[in-house]
Amino acid sequence: MSNFGFLDLRLVNAYDVAFREARSAVGASALMASARECATVAEAVGDCTLVVGTASPGHRDPQTPLRRLERGARLMKQHAAASKLGIALLFGSEKFGLSNEDLSYCHWLMRIPTRGEHESMNLGQAVAVCLYELARDGRAPDKKQKAIHTADGASVDRIADTFNDILNRSGYTNPKTAASTELKVRRMVRRLGLSEKDAGMWLGMLRQIRWKVDRGE
Amino acid sequence: MSNFGFLDLRLVNAYDVAFREARSAVGASALMASARECATVAEAVGDCTLVVGTASPGHRDPQTPLRRLERGARLMKQHAAASKLGIALLFGSEKFGLSNEDLSYCHWLMRIPTRGEHESMNLGQAVAVCLYELARDGRAPDKKQKAIHTADGASVDRIADTFNDILNRSGYTNPKTAASTELKVRRMVRRLGLSEKDAGMWLGMLRQIRWKVDRGE
Repeated sequence: MSNFGFLDLRLVNAYDVAFREARSAVGASALMASARECATVAEAVGDCTLVVGTASPGHRDPQTPLRRLERGARLMKQHAAASKLGIALLFGSEKFGLSNEDLSYCHWLMRIPTRGEHESMNLGQAVAVCLYELARDGRAPDKKQKAIHTADGASVDRIADTFNDILNRSGYTNPKTAASTELKVRRMVRRLGLSEKDAGMWLGMLRQIRWKVDRGE
Repeated sequence: MSNFGFLDLRLVNAYDVAFREARSAVGASALMASARECATVAEAVGDCTLVVGTASPGHRDPQTPLRRLERGARLMKQHAAASKLGIALLFGSEKFGLSNEDLSYCHWLMRIPTRGEHESMNLGQAVAVCLYELARDGRAPDKKQKAIHTADGASVDRIADTFNDILNRSGYTNPKTAASTELKVRRMVRRLGLSEKDAGMWLGMLRQIRWKVDRGE
């Protein structure tokens, strides 16, 4: 929850031992410390204007609209933008899901699109996936990165020349077709799209190889 | 993994005890049974044409392009559509993430957009979120639902009429402004957007109330 910026956790009828242990654990987050224990779902969602339940894959309930997560999250965000009051996302236990009574508090349901073969999903993973979709921003730009400077043509040519030298001196190049081989190599090297830094490194290595090849002649 | 349709798990240097236990557990999936153990990352990704690493939120490496999950997943899908060979998504251990050596096998990195306050994320949840994004389909329609038949105008009017009757007989309606009150009630009832079935139920209840009010006159 905290990873995706959702900080208001409410637990209905929490399993005491596990909850207290988690709460008092070393490094327990502020979120756990401020989590509210409620006796009923009604109490937990009392201040919310929209309650969306999460349905397990096998869920069948023709009464309540069931939406795929992608679309449901969009509707939740629209509601959140229009309303100052809270929105609740309600999860059932991993084993039993939401009861019929729980469902009666839900305006509609959302399901994570998963393979039909599976009847359920790990609860922690289901929560993470739902909150990720709510926090998701398809139009957000990537973080600015240190620009990677591409090697200029002269550097690329120095590499190609050196490599051609080596091929020549190694007897790889057929003198009759040397010109076309050299062109081919030049194009190959260009296609590598080397960065400035990498180009320098390659040139150094190739020069060393050429020196070695020269000594062997 | 299996929830989202990804069935090819490869483990590098797996923690033996935990892995064997999971594999031999009752109800272990076919996925676990067919998981391949590899000695090195090189072996695990040897048949892949694209290897994408996952970076922890605190990751800093100006050399390797780092993309937000939303965009990275799009690029991976484009690559998958163009290539017949495999694509690997590489996760490090929850504690240490990917090592520099692991990173050297990655064409680029992806990060899950999370709050800056967090240095890491639960591994199982991170995997679920990444695979969800890869399987995600923003344009998929919701599953066909049993159509909810909306009550027709006549039923709505019967309800409004009955309710107006009750208000009249209860002394709520001021005779001087009765016409405008009746209109207001009619609009209110229409805004309820009742289903056919619910409308029948409401009408039954209101008729009962009217009968009671009549008897009290």
